[in-house]
Amino acid sequence: MADHKITLLPSNATVEVPTGALISEAIRKAGLEVAQPCGGQGRCGRCAVILHGAGARRRSTVRLSAQDIDAGYALACQTVVEGDLSVTIPEQERIQRRMVTDKTAAKVELPFLYDAAMQGVRTFRIYMEEPSLQDNRDDLTRIQRALAEAGHPDCEVPLPLVRRLSEALRQSEWSPWVVLETDNGSRPNGPARLIDISAEPIEPLGLAVDIGTTTVSVYLVDLTTGVVLGSAAEYNGQIAFGEDVISRIIYAGKNTGLSDLTARVRGTLDELLERLRLRTGVTPERIHKLTLAGNTTMVHLILGLPPASIRLAPYIPTVNQPAVYTAGELGLHLNPLASVDCLPGVASYVGADITAGALACTLADSDELTLFIDVGTNGEIVLGTRDWMVTCACSAGPAFEGAGVVHGMRATEGAIEEVWINSDTYEPTTRVLGDVPPRGLCGSGLISLLAELFVTGVVDRGGSVKLDLGTPRVRQGEHGPEYVVAWAPESASGQDIVLTKVDIDNLLRAKAAIYAGFTVLATSVGVDLANVQRILVGGSFGKYINVEKAVQIGLLPDVPWNRFQFLGNTAILGTYRAALSRDERERIRQIAGQMTYLELSADNSFYEAFTAALFLPHTEISRFPSVAEVWERNATKESG
Amino acid sequence: MADHKITLLPSNATVEVPTGALISEAIRKAGLEVAQPCGGQGRCGRCAVILHGAGARRRSTVRLSAQDIDAGYALACQTVVEGDLSVTIPEQERIQRRMVTDKTAAKVELPFLYDAAMQGVRTFRIYMEEPSLQDNRDDLTRIQRALAEAGHPDCEVPLPLVRRLSEALRQSEWSPWVVLETDNGSRPNGPARLIDISAEPIEPLGLAVDIGTTTVSVYLVDLTTGVVLGSAAEYNGQIAFGEDVISRIIYAGKNTGLSDLTARVRGTLDELLERLRLRTGVTPERIHKLTLAGNTTMVHLILGLPPASIRLAPYIPTVNQPAVYTAGELGLHLNPLASVDCLPGVASYVGADITAGALACTLADSDELTLFIDVGTNGEIVLGTRDWMVTCACSAGPAFEGAGVVHGMRATEGAIEEVWINSDTYEPTTRVLGDVPPRGLCGSGLISLLAELFVTGVVDRGGSVKLDLGTPRVRQGEHGPEYVVAWAPESASGQDIVLTKVDIDNLLRAKAAIYAGFTVLATSVGVDLANVQRILVGGSFGKYINVEKAVQIGLLPDVPWNRFQFLGNTAILGTYRAALSRDERERIRQIAGQMTYLELSADNSFYEAFTAALFLPHTEISRFPSVAEVWERNATKESG
Repeated sequence: MADHKITLLPSNATVEVPTGALISEAIRKAGLEVAQPCGGQGRCGRCAVILHGAGARRRSTVRLSAQDIDAGYALACQTVVEGDLSVTIPEQERIQRRMVTDKTAAKVELPFLYDAAMQGVRTFRIYMEEPSLQDNRDDLTRIQRALAEAGHPDCEVPLPLVRRLSEALRQSEWSPWVVLETDNGSRPNGPARLIDISAEPIEPLGLAVDIGTTTVSVYLVDLTTGVVLGSAAEYNGQIAFGEDVISRIIYAGKNTGLSDLTARVRGTLDELLERLRLRTGVTPERIHKLTLAGNTTMVHLILGLPPASIRLAPYIPTVNQPAVYTAGELGLHLNPLASVDCLPGVASYVGADITAGALACTLADSDELTLFIDVGTNGEIVLGTRDWMVTCACSAGPAFEGAGVVHGMRATEGAIEEVWINSDTYEPTTRVLGDVPPRGLCGSGLISLLAELFVTGVVDRGGSVKLDLGTPRVRQGEHGPEYVVAWAPESASGQDIVLTKVDIDNLLRAKAAIYAGFTVLATSVGVDLANVQRILVGGSFGKYINVEKAVQIGLLPDVPWNRFQFLGNTAILGTYRAALSRDERERIRQIAGQMTYLELSADNSFYEAFTAALFLPHTEISRFPSVAEVWERNATKESG
Repeated sequence: MADHKITLLPSNATVEVPTGALISEAIRKAGLEVAQPCGGQGRCGRCAVILHGAGARRRSTVRLSAQDIDAGYALACQTVVEGDLSVTIPEQERIQRRMVTDKTAAKVELPFLYDAAMQGVRTFRIYMEEPSLQDNRDDLTRIQRALAEAGHPDCEVPLPLVRRLSEALRQSEWSPWVVLETDNGSRPNGPARLIDISAEPIEPLGLAVDIGTTTVSVYLVDLTTGVVLGSAAEYNGQIAFGEDVISRIIYAGKNTGLSDLTARVRGTLDELLERLRLRTGVTPERIHKLTLAGNTTMVHLILGLPPASIRLAPYIPTVNQPAVYTAGELGLHLNPLASVDCLPGVASYVGADITAGALACTLADSDELTLFIDVGTNGEIVLGTRDWMVTCACSAGPAFEGAGVVHGMRATEGAIEEVWINSDTYEPTTRVLGDVPPRGLCGSGLISLLAELFVTGVVDRGGSVKLDLGTPRVRQGEHGPEYVVAWAPESASGQDIVLTKVDIDNLLRAKAAIYAGFTVLATSVGVDLANVQRILVGGSFGKYINVEKAVQIGLLPDVPWNRFQFLGNTAILGTYRAALSRDERERIRQIAGQMTYLELSADNSFYEAFTAALFLPHTEISRFPSVAEVWERNATKESG
């Protein structure tokens, strides 16, 4: 097939691709990126580009209007190259990579009375007799004897260290420093393993990692003192191949998709390690232990396991409790002998981020009836006490991450994060991240806007927009009724920023899925949500939402505000504890074992609960007494 | 530094090297080879090349005569490039690579009543329940449960198989065939390890390998039936870097020497696997187990362990009993999960080839006092019974391999392998390998020639050549007195083939070292060599020597001929047994533990025994009654 020359604007990069290649493939081949929240399925419309020239054919034009198409817009993932052409990648579609979310990695306090003897890595010096003609034991036998005398019989010495043994023993004059892994989490009573040997003292370091679908967070930990030497966070490089886990799973099933995804998250880890090196001077080779949490799909992808079956009924992962591997086996650029301990998950949609989170959030420490929810890119819920736990995952979809919403975006510069609507004029006041002209609405902004539209009566309990309010803010748009939150002259793009009826329906489905999860869990164990004593909210999402608004739209249960705690990234906190202490590591294993997983797709009561929750705040408004009060007051005022 | 152009003849290859490079480096850079039996130390004189042009400087001219130097000869390993020049690599110095020694790999009988259940690899099919929403255990848990039910609890599943698990379980409809390593030799009671999984039946295959300093031999074994499917042997590709272990150890200490050597022997193994593939159709990926013997240095080199300390007092290897590694870890091109079981050795100079040999030769089966000797490139000796064994290594040097002898060569085409001398005329009759004009003398030829020279009175008991015999065969040569075994017109090179006094001294030292080893072992346990009931000779060398002649020069003890058995490559036979049976593998471990190693360099009695053995056949001729009889008869005839 003939090759065609594609020029990519504004960068002016050129690339040659054969007839039939997708525009998205050409963009990737040029080393550029275009957002593909749906994983290249032609569903989300976020990869729209502008074509110049006739050398392409649109296979699908979902979410593009006739005017868009006239203006040259096409979906990069659905448009096939048939000749030379130029393609503009619009500014707002290029991925914002540098709006670093390092703010999620704050200063961390030692979470418990730290006992160095309790962590699974030991460093010490050993002393051996020098060999002689009378005592000609080989080097390996000699060091294993010395390690046995130090309390570690049958210590495993990996091949790379056997290769260095001769030199290390002689250079250290038969008294080397060693680093031993005495317990790696998956092998609590097994023999120790030698990780490092040197003629100089060695400080063992650990890395706690949370691989989120959106963000990867790391803590660099001094394993001797327990102190966090540095922390960093960065968008997961896999985002270019899909914003939610389902899109990633689909992408993993394509040609080199799995290895692409594995390489991307490794690359993100490399970036984070480099940033830590610049801040702390610690080179990755000095890291002897990596403890890792993530949802089940993220753990599969970093291990290079095909995730396809996670997505297909009956939703079976390859593994929930991975063995401990080495950095070398996984191609991670730490000390190649560093152990990589992936914390245990429970099921395909309740992963190690939730078991680690359940430890960090103190759910497992208490007799109080506690609801733990982690709304990141997915929504996972745990209900229970120290003695029992039920858990489920809600396919909320990425609406709260800004996907599936016309002007949705992630919480980066230009995102409207909070909205207040005047109940008389229906005019909005907004707060924008970064104090710049608004570009769209992030998750907290969407919740806030929907709640305000509801309590001010712009939308009714079914989510319909009232068009007869006598304000230009409400109008019949191209996609149906919509509310204009920012006029074109104020916005960064020079276009109106709106929330449409379709967007509202998407948001209602997302919040209904989560609330239905609460309902099903509570029903399954026969408790009332009103009796929940603590609601612990983890995940970056939880850090920024306004509880009042979240309750008003029926996303969170209507209980007194003092029962809510917002904990931030509970997954990385739990992972950090596990990295430091084999007791904490063992508790996470126990928590995973304690959790009873409810598969909602197999549960008829879930569908009922979901349908009932598709209203604002809920079909049964009596479940939300505080919301009922506000709503009724406004309704009265309106009609009054 | 300026680069100089070196043209290599007769191939006309050119290569550029900087000032100061050795000619040997230039040859290697061009992808050519020159023999370096001494490892590039300038000791053996075998890397002589002919210089054309003045662009080189000889740092050393050991073993080159003034005429040689006038003719342009120089040692490739001792000559430094200083300008452009041409270099001829003489025909006889290019390594004979294709005189394949596959004859060492004959048809092998099953060595014992073979019981497939006794070998450490099992293959069978397992059956699992299909998962459902009610039974949503992950794939790994499911297969581990099934393996536990089949009698293998806690089975280890290596990462590459975890990666294939999802597909393999579903493709096989939850009933895959598996290959398990149930016992890997170094971990007799540990849990099993999964090596392979497939929707199709799998036939597990094993490879038994003996890595000799000179020759690498392999047997391809059907682990289900025990049948040898094919065998092959090839020169060890490391020969280009030195013919004996000491030369290799020295070479390993140079820049990339260790990795060069490791790569060479891997390459040899690849060649053998390719030859087996052509003969049997078996691709290397189908081999699930490799069992390996070799002397301690060879084992270090294939594992990538630096061997330097083996050569330095107190002669400590990194490891005598290596753990079991995988082919993937070692970069061997079998199934990457195949276990690589290096059989245990005893000390730096008594390796796994001897422990495996002691099993195969039946020494360990018998109550009879047995002497087992393996004269390959080195000479190792074991004296004992099933209940006790003493062992030592003799630094015989490679004289019997043809090195250190002016016209010595390996047993390839053109080697004189047997000599008879007429005791009246002193004219020789020779047998030449391959029925071509003679090129030199191989080990058996050297022994044969020396024995004939001795019994016919050409050399006396001290090894001096008598010059007054009235025959042109005896003369004063450039390097002292010498005997001409072939005149120039008969020889392949057109030069006289001689054995010099210097050569004889080298041979005497070699045979004295081995005989002194016998003496020291016998003395150490208080037995008389005359009482040895069996002398078992292993190694390729032993297959071709004439016992009578070997006894006549005092290399082997003078006991009745029916006590001698020549067994060929005992190392590969023992390795084959170990590959087939964990009992046999365990016996080799026990044999290694039973052997008491005597370090001769630390033993004053060795030096005395060595000195006493520097005569023909020995200072105390009464130790060799049959030789004494022949010699005295001839001596009488001469003076009569």
